[in-house]
Amino acid sequence: MLIQKIFIPRLLFIGFGNVGQEVAGLFLAKNNIHPGLAYLKPQVVGIFTKTHGAVVNQAGINLEKAFNQFSKSNHFTQANPDYVNIPVLDAVQNLDYDCLVDVSGLSIKEKGEPAITFTREALKRGINVVSANKGPAAFAYNELKALAEKQGCKFLHESAVMDGAPVFNLYKDNLKGCKVTGLSGILNSTTNFILSKMEEGRTFENALKEAQKHGFVEDDYLNDIDGWDAAVKITILANQFMEASITPLEVLREGIGNITIEQVQNACERGYHLKVICRAFYELNKLYTRVAVEEVPDDHIFSKVSGTGSIIRIETDLMNPIMVVQENPSIRDTAYGIISDLLSIFTT
Amino acid sequence: MLIQKIFIPRLLFIGFGNVGQEVAGLFLAKNNIHPGLAYLKPQVVGIFTKTHGAVVNQAGINLEKAFNQFSKSNHFTQANPDYVNIPVLDAVQNLDYDCLVDVSGLSIKEKGEPAITFTREALKRGINVVSANKGPAAFAYNELKALAEKQGCKFLHESAVMDGAPVFNLYKDNLKGCKVTGLSGILNSTTNFILSKMEEGRTFENALKEAQKHGFVEDDYLNDIDGWDAAVKITILANQFMEASITPLEVLREGIGNITIEQVQNACERGYHLKVICRAFYELNKLYTRVAVEEVPDDHIFSKVSGTGSIIRIETDLMNPIMVVQENPSIRDTAYGIISDLLSIFTT
Repeated sequence: MLIQKIFIPRLLFIGFGNVGQEVAGLFLAKNNIHPGLAYLKPQVVGIFTKTHGAVVNQAGINLEKAFNQFSKSNHFTQANPDYVNIPVLDAVQNLDYDCLVDVSGLSIKEKGEPAITFTREALKRGINVVSANKGPAAFAYNELKALAEKQGCKFLHESAVMDGAPVFNLYKDNLKGCKVTGLSGILNSTTNFILSKMEEGRTFENALKEAQKHGFVEDDYLNDIDGWDAAVKITILANQFMEASITPLEVLREGIGNITIEQVQNACERGYHLKVICRAFYELNKLYTRVAVEEVPDDHIFSKVSGTGSIIRIETDLMNPIMVVQENPSIRDTAYGIISDLLSIFTT
Repeated sequence: MLIQKIFIPRLLFIGFGNVGQEVAGLFLAKNNIHPGLAYLKPQVVGIFTKTHGAVVNQAGINLEKAFNQFSKSNHFTQANPDYVNIPVLDAVQNLDYDCLVDVSGLSIKEKGEPAITFTREALKRGINVVSANKGPAAFAYNELKALAEKQGCKFLHESAVMDGAPVFNLYKDNLKGCKVTGLSGILNSTTNFILSKMEEGRTFENALKEAQKHGFVEDDYLNDIDGWDAAVKITILANQFMEASITPLEVLREGIGNITIEQVQNACERGYHLKVICRAFYELNKLYTRVAVEEVPDDHIFSKVSGTGSIIRIETDLMNPIMVVQENPSIRDTAYGIISDLLSIFTT
């Protein structure tokens, strides 16, 4: 007799934009399409959006219907029997669920709020949190991590940097015993895409428009252009891999707003490529973090990470540097980051 | 009151060449040099070499003395109070220990023996095996894996491919739910190093000699040059990541023995780089594995993996491709692969 284990965690979603819908699509996928997901069949007890309505059903909403309604009208409406009009915080504090899935957007201005509050309130109840929102990890990691440990639950956020490509889980699971001594990489898709296009002769504005059409630019595109997104990411990495205790506001930060097509092409002619490089490094025992436009020589591996690709280079005391590269990710990759965290919480 | 957990697994070593000595050196390192290893303080109960003597002490050999003796004279002798003259197999079957550490060399001709026998005998007793020897994983993975599962112990071999860089542990821990649909990469340091040097104008023989001087060439250098080492590695990967059931003998295999400096430089002039590329891929539902010299275009990331570096590109159903890159590894990296497996067995 074959017995198959199927995991049915109850999930509460905050946000239902591109990433949230892609995650839902994966939950709804047929087993023969993604065989590895056959044993994760979550029950979604609620989905809350900021301004597009909410649905709740403690016995599980009809995800397929909710998904179809939302992708057609971009709203949950009273036509849905599970439609509710209650504050998110109420749901986070009072519903029965096993994991909060935060796929809402990051607010730099609000320093990661309100996502930090929602995460904190779930963790306080001993409920796991999986977050694609970079805010809580960037602005309150040490507090939230300690709270999760105290409460015996998890706060994971694999998709916060390089989407689903293993970064945080790799550090936790696969670099045991290593002390990280330096980090560098290309971590912002939008600026890398724009600089790649400018090398091909396109203007900044034109390249930005194309990036926006592809859907990977932050709602406020200045978050990308001014280096905030990159600063957020190097903050998260430095705090976790190098025991720093900083916020993105402390990262030395340079954007690409002033880069001209002449600069890009002049570098190319000399055998270099302009790239937005994030770094965390020690100098005289002090940790520095910075985001800057650097000239990368043509024979350096970073120069071949083009388009929306990303790369992180990790230096440790026990190995020569290793790198993880992500090749032209799509929204599916971010969704997999969420799935990967859920699998690591619920199936071990 | 602070209580610190220190893990003291009892280890039996087979082999004590460069890798074995580097591992021992890490065990002996001061805590302030490698703080992450402070809580792993193994007791080595035996070290067996093929033709350079053996030491055994069930209460733990004096590792520092053994290490010093061996690095001076390249032999264990009767001057060592723990010196023994018994067959390895006896030790594997009868000593008390928690993990077999196999740092012996691979024999293609013997199809992975005698390492497979030693591994099997340890696993039969429910004893973990950590192996830097590629033989057991390449020629008997499915059998050994099943045996380990049945006996409730582990058979790990992170350093068999790309040394300590996370490959097998990454797949196991961080790609949960993904179906691997294709693999490609540069996995043999010696041929990559030689081809890189030939691009700089050095002859094959001259480059090979330099590689040998650095110590990373297989004892029988034809294992590298003829593509056997690469074939072994893609076999291990295909069997584990793509559910194949092949041996290295079934891999289509091409070496670099016939490559001339003119071919290398002609490719360069046209904007390409000759690289030994390993591949595993499906075509019409059939899995193919191959090792071949390919022309890699200058804008492809593989072309920037030079010297002794390695790269693996993993295609899955749930993400766009991800890659792991290892930058110019040394023997330390292989040693860390062993340490990383020990930490993952004993500290979780």
